[in-house]
Amino acid sequence: MANQVEEFNAYRAKMNDKILADNNKIIKRIFNLDTNAFTAGALDVQTKELLGLVASTVLRCDDCIKYHLESCYNEGLSKEKVVETLSIATLIGGTIVIPHLRRAYEYWDALEAQN
Amino acid sequence: MANQVEEFNAYRAKMNDKILADNNKIIKRIFNLDTNAFTAGALDVQTKELLGLVASTVLRCDDCIKYHLESCYNEGLSKEKVVETLSIATLIGGTIVIPHLRRAYEYWDALEAQN
Amino acid sequence: MANQVEEFNAYRAKMNDKILADNNKIIKRIFNLDTNAFTAGALDVQTKELLGLVASTVLRCDDCIKYHLESCYNEGLSKEKVVETLSIATLIGGTIVIPHLRRAYEYWDALEAQN
Amino acid sequence: MANQVEEFNAYRAKMNDKILADNNKIIKRIFNLDTNAFTAGALDVQTKELLGLVASTVLRCDDCIKYHLESCYNEGLSKEKVVETLSIATLIGGTIVIPHLRRAYEYWDALEAQN
Amino acid sequence: MANQVEEFNAYRAKMNDKILADNNKIIKRIFNLDTNAFTAGALDVQTKELLGLVASTVLRCDDCIKYHLESCYNEGLSKEKVVETLSIATLIGGTIVIPHLRRAYEYWDALEAQN
Amino acid sequence: MANQVEEFNAYRAKMNDKILADNNKIIKRIFNLDTNAFTAGALDVQTKELLGLVASTVLRCDDCIKYHLESCYNEGLSKEKVVETLSIATLIGGTIVIPHLRRAYEYWDALEAQN
Repeated sequence: MANQVEEFNAYRAKMNDKILADNNKIIKRIFNLDTNAFTAGALDVQTKELLGLVASTVLRCDDCIKYHLESCYNEGLSKEKVVETLSIATLIGGTIVIPHLRRAYEYWDALEAQN
Repeated sequence: MANQVEEFNAYRAKMNDKILADNNKIIKRIFNLDTNAFTAGALDVQTKELLGLVASTVLRCDDCIKYHLESCYNEGLSKEKVVETLSIATLIGGTIVIPHLRRAYEYWDALEAQN
Repeated sequence: MANQVEEFNAYRAKMNDKILADNNKIIKRIFNLDTNAFTAGALDVQTKELLGLVASTVLRCDDCIKYHLESCYNEGLSKEKVVETLSIATLIGGTIVIPHLRRAYEYWDALEAQN
Repeated sequence: MANQVEEFNAYRAKMNDKILADNNKIIKRIFNLDTNAFTAGALDVQTKELLGLVASTVLRCDDCIKYHLESCYNEGLSKEKVVETLSIATLIGGTIVIPHLRRAYEYWDALEAQN
Repeated sequence: MANQVEEFNAYRAKMNDKILADNNKIIKRIFNLDTNAFTAGALDVQTKELLGLVASTVLRCDDCIKYHLESCYNEGLSKEKVVETLSIATLIGGTIVIPHLRRAYEYWDALEAQN
Repeated sequence: MANQVEEFNAYRAKMNDKILADNNKIIKRIFNLDTNAFTAGALDVQTKELLGLVASTVLRCDDCIKYHLESCYNEGLSKEKVVETLSIATLIGGTIVIPHLRRAYEYWDALEAQN
């Protein structure tokens, strides 16, 4: 199961490199902003990662969900907090979110299996 | 082709079990509501399944489409009624819906092939 | 309250005339399809209007909701059936749909007040 | 400016009453879940309100944004934390979110003016 | 009718000033990117404005549509080109786009009436 | 890598044939409109393909992105123009678009590898 994590990260890294090598200024700056936005500010990093997770979930973007799940995991957030965040996303976004919830659970298991 | 149906249902069942075992109250109640909402009421079950199908299609959720296609099939709805529902979804949701229409047709064929 | 219905329809008719007078072929044909799609076929008109209503609601388009509410009302659909359709939309689309549900209730009242 | 807050809340309360008086079981339970989901659990109320705010903003629902802004305000969250949440929403959701950001700022001012 | 243009721009300018005065770095940079992205590059300004218009229309953001309609108008794009762009948006985005099409036509008339 | 292009087109063609063989009038006409809308009119074909690409990207439809990337490629549009279009989509649609940007880059490479 850990393979799912490795595969996701390898593809993500490879394509990000291609995109950034292309030197489109707008895209590079958006990637930059993405890094800056999730550093500690008025809100701490854990809260920001949960914000990223809930936004990704209601917008139903599996790759974005995986990315933020992994950051949540690495930041030491408990499964209870992550699931509570996902439950709010499912309530706000509706049952249309449930298939993404399934894949989120699967990815969380893969993150735990990896260590 | 029937395998597509089995695989979908096996994954769905396995992950639903994991999610429900986790005992998050909000998520459990949403799953519960989902079962209740599609039982007969002022509207009959067939009509409700078509409502679920058209909503899933305009929201472009392949897994939700598959789920409601299968319920439609099991409720004995004709392909004509299902396709008419999908045509309304394509008109309301636009050509962006067409890739989901392709996969819906493929899944319907798998449902028919299964029996 | 009936004014809300009249105002909505007057604006809608005036702007549709402008759009169609402009003679863009693609837009004219889409308007045409819109009329055809909701006539009786494999599905009856009432069912189709409920399909239009649920799709409009999960896509959170107030004007589309009003339009289909009015057609439902004119087709003699009971408030129970309409509300059941809206409840399915709220479950599938999530609590983000609730503000549109409020305006749908208000418009239905305006439709009833008008007669 | 405080009027904007009062008007919003008065309309919201009036229509919620109508909706709940109608006794549709699915809708009533969703309203109920909405109350439960934002009480303290693994996450505290402040964090949950920020989750509700960011989800409402990326989904571009003005009424939902207003509702969560008001809860954030009443929970004593600082403007800095609220704006940081809105900035993450704008990054994730894109410039399409900006018109909602304008109205969010206006509503926050109305909340402050009210007291 | 020209008032609609003035009102839109006055509100937009006033709230943008408030937002930018707040000095949130992420938001300021996104506003900056927004200006840069629509200057001439590999694509000319007219093409970029049509891209902005079609994206705003399929995402159903009235304020974004108004903003790009006005830029299109100021860049000297013909109504035929603008309407063709809107027709592609309506086809891709579906009939759910039509209410925004009505308001787009109204705003274009206001732009023409203003001069 | 060229296989990705062939596979995509083969599946697309096969399922389009099935859908059209089914003779649903609404769906057939929408397919027809789709062909007509992208022929030269007030706007040339290249511009229209970029409009299709940006709309598909902000709506986050991978298959639609692939389809328009391929048309852009066949119409002789430079990678610079295509990437500039994708950058506008990422700005307007937000970082939620980035996973689709990765797959768009991969597909463009497959298109180039094919020849």
